[in-house]
Amino acid sequence: MPLSKSTIQYIKSLHLRKFRQKYNNFLAEGGKIVSEILQQAPEAVEQIYAVPEWIAARQHLLSNIKTSVQEITAEELKKIAGLKTPNQVLAIVQQFNFQLNADWLQNDLSLYLDGIQDPGNMGTILRIADWFGIRQVICSPDCVEIFSPKVVQASMGAFLRVQTVEMELAEWSKNFPELPVYGAVLNGVNVFKTPLEKKGIIVIGNESKGISPENEVLLTQRISIPAPPGGGAESLNAAVATGILAAVFRNQG
Amino acid sequence: MPLSKSTIQYIKSLHLRKFRQKYNNFLAEGGKIVSEILQQAPEAVEQIYAVPEWIAARQHLLSNIKTSVQEITAEELKKIAGLKTPNQVLAIVQQFNFQLNADWLQNDLSLYLDGIQDPGNMGTILRIADWFGIRQVICSPDCVEIFSPKVVQASMGAFLRVQTVEMELAEWSKNFPELPVYGAVLNGVNVFKTPLEKKGIIVIGNESKGISPENEVLLTQRISIPAPPGGGAESLNAAVATGILAAVFRNQG
Repeated sequence: MPLSKSTIQYIKSLHLRKFRQKYNNFLAEGGKIVSEILQQAPEAVEQIYAVPEWIAARQHLLSNIKTSVQEITAEELKKIAGLKTPNQVLAIVQQFNFQLNADWLQNDLSLYLDGIQDPGNMGTILRIADWFGIRQVICSPDCVEIFSPKVVQASMGAFLRVQTVEMELAEWSKNFPELPVYGAVLNGVNVFKTPLEKKGIIVIGNESKGISPENEVLLTQRISIPAPPGGGAESLNAAVATGILAAVFRNQG
Repeated sequence: MPLSKSTIQYIKSLHLRKFRQKYNNFLAEGGKIVSEILQQAPEAVEQIYAVPEWIAARQHLLSNIKTSVQEITAEELKKIAGLKTPNQVLAIVQQFNFQLNADWLQNDLSLYLDGIQDPGNMGTILRIADWFGIRQVICSPDCVEIFSPKVVQASMGAFLRVQTVEMELAEWSKNFPELPVYGAVLNGVNVFKTPLEKKGIIVIGNESKGISPENEVLLTQRISIPAPPGGGAESLNAAVATGILAAVFRNQG
């Protein structure tokens, strides 16, 4: 059965944030990511559109799930896809809506992202959290949307394992007065020479403006990645800085 | 004087690798990067095309250089630009052709990139090298081209300060038999728990395939960034891994 005009219109609307929020859905494109969602969160997949070859090769994955799978042609996929080179399958998936996990917050490391704007950086930061077992990433309301197609692609499935919550830092940090709030800044103490707690928040600032003044006053420790005297760059990429800090926190001592 | 048809054609050809190599030139677009090149390597700038406002505001930079500056209209800039939102100025710049620096190789850290394909990763790795004072980055011949527009943009001027050389690892590593050749692999020793030399090469592999078998046999030490038991990602982004390793090498002890 060919795709109806209204279905095409609905799927295309999900390429826009406004409609993703309205319907609480997002799109996953390509075999790798769709297979990963089917394995890790099958109940979130609402609908799959795929070419016959993909369906034939994925019977083992599809036989156990209730999601409806519609066979479409490569031409139809091209009409609904956002990728320049559409890749066999597209799925409509329910957004995951997590609550702040106070237990993880008080007993483990969490990240707080203050205005991360670049989708590639956001996806990479989720992969870093995933690698280092940081289960919770809290995003300021002005961060790039987690369910935008570029973030979903760049995170390589990490958004399935790391819980993301959107909240202002000031909203909850006062409820946890004992919690260390580390901030990545340019003139803080050398993170390699400072004893670090095993729990707490690491605040990562916006790519060009850094941590906002409202959040900077909430920091309990200002930390930096030292550049040697010969170093010249103005700054490290936000995702790279996150990776270095997460690595040091997880491996100190 | 309006841009001639042949000039427009020549500039547009430099958006393609083939012609960048033929003419040994590349394009720098946007005020920030062009100003940085004018300050750090004015002799490399062959020609500047800019809108009147940019020229008027940059008299202090332009008065000291011999480069010819041609005033163009915003419409003309649009015709020759690669950026979706052209930004006031475009420069034709000579490619930098560096030789392997044996002194740096033997007395400092260098990076060897084995098939880095993503321009964003390449630019970010150059920024990392710049930040940590790693002066030399050696690229395998199958790496993405340093002078491609996306690398030039992502490196944020780091390509001006870090020397890049294109060479096979096997070509020169045998000439330095004492030199430690560290490789970032998935099953190596924990980089946080291993004594590291202050000099040597760190080999970073391709984004999906890692270090090639021909280069893996040349490694003298296999190192890894440990994921804690709870970690789940398949791998870290290549630029993030480079950042973590460079940070640890520069800050150990």
